[in-house]
Amino acid sequence: METGSDEYYMRLALAEAAKAAERDEVPVGAVIVAGKSVIARAHNLTETLNDPTAHAEMQAITAATAYLGGKYLTDCSIYITVEPCVMCAGALAWSQIATVVYGASDPKKGYTTTGAGILHPKTGVRTGVLSEECSDMMKKFFRKKRE
Amino acid sequence: METGSDEYYMRLALAEAAKAAERDEVPVGAVIVAGKSVIARAHNLTETLNDPTAHAEMQAITAATAYLGGKYLTDCSIYITVEPCVMCAGALAWSQIATVVYGASDPKKGYTTTGAGILHPKTGVRTGVLSEECSDMMKKFFRKKRE
Repeated sequence: METGSDEYYMRLALAEAAKAAERDEVPVGAVIVAGKSVIARAHNLTETLNDPTAHAEMQAITAATAYLGGKYLTDCSIYITVEPCVMCAGALAWSQIATVVYGASDPKKGYTTTGAGILHPKTGVRTGVLSEECSDMMKKFFRKKRE
Repeated sequence: METGSDEYYMRLALAEAAKAAERDEVPVGAVIVAGKSVIARAHNLTETLNDPTAHAEMQAITAATAYLGGKYLTDCSIYITVEPCVMCAGALAWSQIATVVYGASDPKKGYTTTGAGILHPKTGVRTGVLSEECSDMMKKFFRKKRE
């Protein structure tokens, strides 16, 4: 696994997702990269914070923009273990982030299910990076929930 | 203006929007009401916080859920001076808020422009409350920006 590859950053996002799972949170993780530097890492904390807006992506965007001192992420990429929801895609649109890379698709709540062009027109999207691992983490979590 | 009327709460949201304008922020305000009690007030702070997620609605949702100690707003209404964007509508969907009331439409960035059913199916929507005042506040702000 090459440093700086999609897989490399997705593994960091997976490590964040694992932290969420440990807290009994839906296991989604995200990292934001500027150049080759990780400038934000976050995992879903909606239950812990009692806050429906505390998705991994939202926290990562807030952290990254705070770090950069500006509200745009035009030179950054975000790696997310699962396809972002409408809220997060809307937030990514405002940030004008250069690239969105996600692992597993979310056929129920993913932003692409709306059929609407939510992301910024200049944002590039890559999908399917370590998708099986990203998806397995979600499946395992919900299987355990149902037990 | 009757206490507890749509107009009453929209005036409170307008007062929040005015606070945003004073800070040179796009003047959008929001309040969240449970029963007849205002449990959250917020205004747009994207420039002040360098955070594209710091819309009035997002902050109001975070404040209201923190106050209630749960991540749902099923018995609450939100009053917003301007139609929410996709991000905020997505957040309101997660909160399962009972009612969304907004003043002015946003033909550029409003969630209805996507044509997608973004809000929760159980959420009721009322529009046009004090729309002229809400809209005038925005127009005045952008006119001043262009000067």
